[in-house]
Amino acid sequence: MPMMTAGQYEESLKRLNLVVYMFGKKLENVVDDPIIRPSMLAVAKTYELAHQTEHEDIMTATSHISGEKINRFVHIHQSTDDLVKKSKMGRLLGRETGCCFQRCVGMDALNALSIVTHNIDKKYDTSYKQRFIKYLEYVQENDFTCDGAMTDPKGDRSLPPHKQPDPDHYLHVVEEREDGIVVRGAKAHQTGAVNSHEIIVMPTIAMRQEDKDYAVSFALPADAEGIFYIMGRQSCDTRKLEEGLMDRGNILFGGHEALVVFDNVFVPWDRVFMYKEYDFAGQLVEKFSAYHRQSYACKVGVGDVLIGAAQTAAEYNNAAKASHIKDKIIEMNHLNETLYCGCIACASEGNREPGGTYLVNTLLANIHKQNVTRFPYEISRIAQDIAGGLMVTMPSEQDFTSPETGKWLEKYYTAHCDAPTINRMRILRLIENMTLGTAAVGYLTESMHGAGSPQAQRIMISRLVNIEEKKRAAKKLCGIDEE
Amino acid sequence: MPMMTAGQYEESLKRLNLVVYMFGKKLENVVDDPIIRPSMLAVAKTYELAHQTEHEDIMTATSHISGEKINRFVHIHQSTDDLVKKSKMGRLLGRETGCCFQRCVGMDALNALSIVTHNIDKKYDTSYKQRFIKYLEYVQENDFTCDGAMTDPKGDRSLPPHKQPDPDHYLHVVEEREDGIVVRGAKAHQTGAVNSHEIIVMPTIAMRQEDKDYAVSFALPADAEGIFYIMGRQSCDTRKLEEGLMDRGNILFGGHEALVVFDNVFVPWDRVFMYKEYDFAGQLVEKFSAYHRQSYACKVGVGDVLIGAAQTAAEYNNAAKASHIKDKIIEMNHLNETLYCGCIACASEGNREPGGTYLVNTLLANIHKQNVTRFPYEISRIAQDIAGGLMVTMPSEQDFTSPETGKWLEKYYTAHCDAPTINRMRILRLIENMTLGTAAVGYLTESMHGAGSPQAQRIMISRLVNIEEKKRAAKKLCGIDEE
Amino acid sequence: MPMMTAGQYEESLKRLNLVVYMFGKKLENVVDDPIIRPSMLAVAKTYELAHQTEHEDIMTATSHISGEKINRFVHIHQSTDDLVKKSKMGRLLGRETGCCFQRCVGMDALNALSIVTHNIDKKYDTSYKQRFIKYLEYVQENDFTCDGAMTDPKGDRSLPPHKQPDPDHYLHVVEEREDGIVVRGAKAHQTGAVNSHEIIVMPTIAMRQEDKDYAVSFALPADAEGIFYIMGRQSCDTRKLEEGLMDRGNILFGGHEALVVFDNVFVPWDRVFMYKEYDFAGQLVEKFSAYHRQSYACKVGVGDVLIGAAQTAAEYNNAAKASHIKDKIIEMNHLNETLYCGCIACASEGNREPGGTYLVNTLLANIHKQNVTRFPYEISRIAQDIAGGLMVTMPSEQDFTSPETGKWLEKYYTAHCDAPTINRMRILRLIENMTLGTAAVGYLTESMHGAGSPQAQRIMISRLVNIEEKKRAAKKLCGIDEE
Amino acid sequence: MPMMTAGQYEESLKRLNLVVYMFGKKLENVVDDPIIRPSMLAVAKTYELAHQTEHEDIMTATSHISGEKINRFVHIHQSTDDLVKKSKMGRLLGRETGCCFQRCVGMDALNALSIVTHNIDKKYDTSYKQRFIKYLEYVQENDFTCDGAMTDPKGDRSLPPHKQPDPDHYLHVVEEREDGIVVRGAKAHQTGAVNSHEIIVMPTIAMRQEDKDYAVSFALPADAEGIFYIMGRQSCDTRKLEEGLMDRGNILFGGHEALVVFDNVFVPWDRVFMYKEYDFAGQLVEKFSAYHRQSYACKVGVGDVLIGAAQTAAEYNNAAKASHIKDKIIEMNHLNETLYCGCIACASEGNREPGGTYLVNTLLANIHKQNVTRFPYEISRIAQDIAGGLMVTMPSEQDFTSPETGKWLEKYYTAHCDAPTINRMRILRLIENMTLGTAAVGYLTESMHGAGSPQAQRIMISRLVNIEEKKRAAKKLCGIDEE
Repeated sequence: MPMMTAGQYEESLKRLNLVVYMFGKKLENVVDDPIIRPSMLAVAKTYELAHQTEHEDIMTATSHISGEKINRFVHIHQSTDDLVKKSKMGRLLGRETGCCFQRCVGMDALNALSIVTHNIDKKYDTSYKQRFIKYLEYVQENDFTCDGAMTDPKGDRSLPPHKQPDPDHYLHVVEEREDGIVVRGAKAHQTGAVNSHEIIVMPTIAMRQEDKDYAVSFALPADAEGIFYIMGRQSCDTRKLEEGLMDRGNILFGGHEALVVFDNVFVPWDRVFMYKEYDFAGQLVEKFSAYHRQSYACKVGVGDVLIGAAQTAAEYNNAAKASHIKDKIIEMNHLNETLYCGCIACASEGNREPGGTYLVNTLLANIHKQNVTRFPYEISRIAQDIAGGLMVTMPSEQDFTSPETGKWLEKYYTAHCDAPTINRMRILRLIENMTLGTAAVGYLTESMHGAGSPQAQRIMISRLVNIEEKKRAAKKLCGIDEE
Repeated sequence: MPMMTAGQYEESLKRLNLVVYMFGKKLENVVDDPIIRPSMLAVAKTYELAHQTEHEDIMTATSHISGEKINRFVHIHQSTDDLVKKSKMGRLLGRETGCCFQRCVGMDALNALSIVTHNIDKKYDTSYKQRFIKYLEYVQENDFTCDGAMTDPKGDRSLPPHKQPDPDHYLHVVEEREDGIVVRGAKAHQTGAVNSHEIIVMPTIAMRQEDKDYAVSFALPADAEGIFYIMGRQSCDTRKLEEGLMDRGNILFGGHEALVVFDNVFVPWDRVFMYKEYDFAGQLVEKFSAYHRQSYACKVGVGDVLIGAAQTAAEYNNAAKASHIKDKIIEMNHLNETLYCGCIACASEGNREPGGTYLVNTLLANIHKQNVTRFPYEISRIAQDIAGGLMVTMPSEQDFTSPETGKWLEKYYTAHCDAPTINRMRILRLIENMTLGTAAVGYLTESMHGAGSPQAQRIMISRLVNIEEKKRAAKKLCGIDEE
Repeated sequence: MPMMTAGQYEESLKRLNLVVYMFGKKLENVVDDPIIRPSMLAVAKTYELAHQTEHEDIMTATSHISGEKINRFVHIHQSTDDLVKKSKMGRLLGRETGCCFQRCVGMDALNALSIVTHNIDKKYDTSYKQRFIKYLEYVQENDFTCDGAMTDPKGDRSLPPHKQPDPDHYLHVVEEREDGIVVRGAKAHQTGAVNSHEIIVMPTIAMRQEDKDYAVSFALPADAEGIFYIMGRQSCDTRKLEEGLMDRGNILFGGHEALVVFDNVFVPWDRVFMYKEYDFAGQLVEKFSAYHRQSYACKVGVGDVLIGAAQTAAEYNNAAKASHIKDKIIEMNHLNETLYCGCIACASEGNREPGGTYLVNTLLANIHKQNVTRFPYEISRIAQDIAGGLMVTMPSEQDFTSPETGKWLEKYYTAHCDAPTINRMRILRLIENMTLGTAAVGYLTESMHGAGSPQAQRIMISRLVNIEEKKRAAKKLCGIDEE
Repeated sequence: MPMMTAGQYEESLKRLNLVVYMFGKKLENVVDDPIIRPSMLAVAKTYELAHQTEHEDIMTATSHISGEKINRFVHIHQSTDDLVKKSKMGRLLGRETGCCFQRCVGMDALNALSIVTHNIDKKYDTSYKQRFIKYLEYVQENDFTCDGAMTDPKGDRSLPPHKQPDPDHYLHVVEEREDGIVVRGAKAHQTGAVNSHEIIVMPTIAMRQEDKDYAVSFALPADAEGIFYIMGRQSCDTRKLEEGLMDRGNILFGGHEALVVFDNVFVPWDRVFMYKEYDFAGQLVEKFSAYHRQSYACKVGVGDVLIGAAQTAAEYNNAAKASHIKDKIIEMNHLNETLYCGCIACASEGNREPGGTYLVNTLLANIHKQNVTRFPYEISRIAQDIAGGLMVTMPSEQDFTSPETGKWLEKYYTAHCDAPTINRMRILRLIENMTLGTAAVGYLTESMHGAGSPQAQRIMISRLVNIEEKKRAAKKLCGIDEE
């Protein structure tokens, strides 16, 4: 039975021996840490919804290996229909969690490796694909959450890996042994790292022969010897340590990111999926990036929440019928659905790669992601417009419950709508959370830089459009015959 | 053999007896009129490409009635794949003509009627669908170009049809006869009207019982007794009357629009597809509008031409490698492909209507069209940026060929690129044509108002998004329990 | 000697007996409270710079009453040159504090009252102006910081003050006594309230006769009997309670806002500047708003800081020479200086009001503020683009100083630029502070809603432009003669 | 009496013997040519308004040489007040003509030379300033319109002047004689060239020693031996040759641009203002550009017309009260007044140069012009939105007057507003003229490229902002101490 429940997922995490540091200290209990736990619960949602009949079509798939029903997050896309459902799954979970649910990056890594191991084998007569399929079976059987780890610290950005003053600034092989390899380095900005069972490492840029020790891809249990995690902090993170729930905004879910250090870590051969085939490093980056840029479908779902929150705030303010408010809600929806068009189009225009895995249309995936670096910011701006200034001037939850101040706040913060005053505060705290607080990290900054910063997409757009065909069409119409 | 060639199309038009006025005079020869002819040639392209093997998949379809291969422009969509191909056909033809090729509106009218005649029959036990299918067979067999005529003059916009000071401001039935009906009124902004064999009339707004005489839909030959056309004029239209070709910019193709007057026109019953079923007027408008908003896929193809022209101009200016130029070309492509995502997504997310016709996702079609009211303007602005000021200060073609001035222009307008100076001028004239001239009418103003002005889409967006679901999601996440 | 030093200012605050609540508890020591203190230091900067020769011209003025040199914040503008210098003072202080320095609102209240007391006297033969001048002398002599308090809670926004279910939802007179009046109500969103010596109350909307008890303006010491404060909380506020400084981003300054409750507060007659002259309530709002919309000149200075931080981050990332980075810095500057043009233009186009006070050009002040509701958001978005994802994934300051994790962070977060790694972190924390943290409250949300939400400016723009003159010009040019 | 009337201006032009080519032929009568005449009438407006009392303050100034009242277009700015009035004069004339009135470029050339001749003299002990002042007296006495000619054809843009394959691609000295110099070359994009009495030539880029023969500035009568003009053509130019007026849109005024060829032209020494002082070429370009970027104040006036036209069209459509229309008018005004802020701010922040001439704030002038490359396009887009599709589908004026078609157009194009149907058409033709037709050349493309293309402003912005001060401020606030 390959699909875990949310409860089983939590239990399985507890069995890991992760080495995690936060605020300068090693954590005793990762799963129950109040700052991390909401991010674990967001991942748990990917397990929970897979068991709900209404979401079955979107959340599950049939394994092309085992033929069993599996969580779509561990599935290899077998059709454009699979790709479209992946986008819809992202939107669904974004809407249900209002944050980054973290599990897509592993899905994208699995699918990218599915393509590239095939291609390496074709060229070098290796057997990476077979190894990978075996690993995939293991992941599917256990319904694991995988962290896809790509971004190296990069050190001096003007230099290639092998020229870095510190050779570890890109993760690399430091020793080849009979039973495997030893690697060293780090991966930064690892979303959901400490909520993962497995970590799948990939190189971060195209490489040349001199960088071949850096052209390595493999998978390991998240608690393998020598791996440790240093948690990043987020705006308003410590509100999760405060008494009360309201000031968190999103009282249920959150995300996290971490630096993952590989301090001389051993990888057995059956977990190695690329080893010094430097000429495939770029391809792996590109396939993974294409999939992962599609994955920003989730922001459409987060946008749904923000639109819903803005509409609710407008209603609580007795302002929802003002024509300028209605127009702003329309604009938010327009931008959000424009994003949706991008993640649907790159999926429905996907294609079958050699080896059978379906890949999104790479140009359109880049177009989609580029819009994701823009529209959530404008949606946020409009949400703040609709919310009103109270969002950033309202007192703490303690002030609302305090016998000295609570009655005054109740008196002066009512807007005489049907809802209790405290609900008006709750919805404003949610908007604060999404536009300035912990969720803003995911909805805004991660939308900017995740799966590649905006300039990365622009370079890809430049490469992928067929400019010669456009020039030909233009010249023909104005009578330029250059032959 | 149901598919005409371009030549056969032209011949078939010559056989029509259209009554057309332009510049205050009745035209003797519509097909050869120098102002109209380029628009006819753009429609002819829809016939020509259908015969080319490389475009067969996109340009043709299999009739669900006859099973024969037909031009996609007379096809009823049988799947989302058909809808996606329709979008691609629009882009292809936009790219090959650089203008409005006019034939989509009839296709959209046929498909909308295919749905709505079915629905009327279900409610009223009428037999419109059967009539319509018979008419469709006739259109498919003859591979006709149809004009879809929806927009009434509207008179006083604050009043419904039946309250207009002049009852003809909405087209309506003035007499019911045993063999048919007599109608009076007009349809404005009729794209490609005088290049059409048939004209399909639909109501322009949702109606109530009092307006039932206005709830009428029918098809007629374009040269039926009592129909006449008054041509609209376009920016730079008379350049087509000048000697020389260069100053036209697009030396091959163009578009046109006309006012069509119905001066007591008889319609036989077998051509009537709605008659006083006022409660379906709104549905017909909505289905047609959804299809037609998708049809703005063509502007992506026109955008391709403008991008190609801008890139060519940059190369002729020896400026194509400047980083700011490259970035502007990327931005043009980004906006253009964002539009493409819209017309692909609304198609791939289409659905089967009762009766079997496939309809686009109406929300996403409105999203797409809304972006079409914005991005072509920005693409044009960037094209003018890249083109340089010469685009609007360069002398006429006659100055280039004149013995007195030609040599000076050759001397001073060379940019020492590989291309002849005159080609540099040609590409600038094309950009002028698309951003200020005849093609700007289609690429800009028609993008704004065709298939409904921006506010029409905003109203639809407001209606079609599920705001309650968004509110529910938001409230749940911040702890608001309203039950 | 009317100008206090920063030290004297702090001392003077300590002598106040303010009743302030935060996190549900009454504060013992407001001035030294770690969350409030940075906001006090920002106000202190307005005192400090006034004593610096290089800033004397901008920071000080000559009192038109006493002829003495005074801090410009307590000055009544005597010329357009004064108005221009006010804008420059705002930019200067924004740049030096990187946040809201809070003192402008009192300056704007004083200047608005200077105009309106004059106008009331002219109509009603009252002597408010004389009272006001006496009060002004007192403020100037003591170099006080005043809080200008305008925004009422408003309750049900569809109802005027006198129809509110709770009459206190707009501040109003509850008793008239021989020696003064008693008022009740509250003012929300009071910037810098607990750093002020005085609080100047004004009505918040135009009023009619029925609302005359609400048409009241007066000034009181901030610690008058019956006044108390409930502090609003800000994103990341509690980082100021943490050990270490770095994670605060701006380690020196901040802002604050509070709800001020007037619980049956007595105001002596000599402090009352409007009393039931309801027909001047709207004028006072409008004059104050015009001045206060100009005051958003400060955001240009805050923008300077954010641009400087983004440029520094780019240099620390070894990315400052990339053409796309340079272009983004240019765009930030372009937007920021466009804002500067607005606050300069509305000042230099100011005019002398009856009574001698100079007022900004109200139309242009509204134009300026409207841009302030947009551009800082885009500047922030670009800053996040340049900063890179590390801004939201970097660990806490404790992790950098911890013996277990510090060395790893040092190793992996260096970018091999000249600066120490920790400085790279500091500048990213500053950008976080300004785009997501405490300063984002001021730079973004306050830019949106302070001095009136965007729609308020749009209504004013609509009223203030001369649309008839524009219509006349257009009609003349196309030959429309309507006379 | 130094100020000409409009009639005297026209007469004075008729006395010139200009050599002008258009459509490949030499013109017999430039002043009465139907295509050129509207542009002459726009210049004439600069003479007419100077005699009207209500505009005296803005349109005239007192000569600092003669002490006489002169037209501001021949004035050397003596104060920031002069600079501000220059901006207001631009807006006024833009509003009254709805197009480019062409005379600013000569004013800007005179002022730039006033500064630079002073500076050359200071360095090289030459006497250019004295020569220039004498020339200026002559211009002021005769109230001449001057063409400021800067833009060379530039040939291969990657090469400096002295390396061009054709040495004439930058205008240069070909012979030095005792009584003067002989020059050869051309100036492109010369606005209003054939409506000018004088032509003032300046170099177009900064130069080095090798380019010294290209570092030349001088003035000549527009009909000097060896100078000839080739007219550029504009969108819809030939509508001015048609019968009827309506289809011109702007029935009164227009602009023009021409290529000016200097075919071995003699310049006497007293007309030479720079001769091989290559190190001042860049300064002259920069000062002229700063003034000329300010001059785009005129587009605010043209924007006034377009806003007025859009509002009128909305009223004629019975749509002016719809909330979305009102909001769009507000947005047009907002953008237009933001432009106004730019041209006012750069003027009021101007400074006195050595020698006494006042110069605009160069940074803010560049900011202003950069916005001019954007906002008119958006204002146009909104105008087209409000106008409706009829703007590009309405028939010709002949159709309205034809007995066969006129009655039908009258019947179907009425909107039942108070105005005659034909007025509704007139206002739409005006909007067409400004957004697609002859005036679009000035309002859009010239806004883009006049006084330097957008990238030129971006480079200046980058140079002129004080980025070091911004970095210092940012570093201080986050605790970076680099000393």
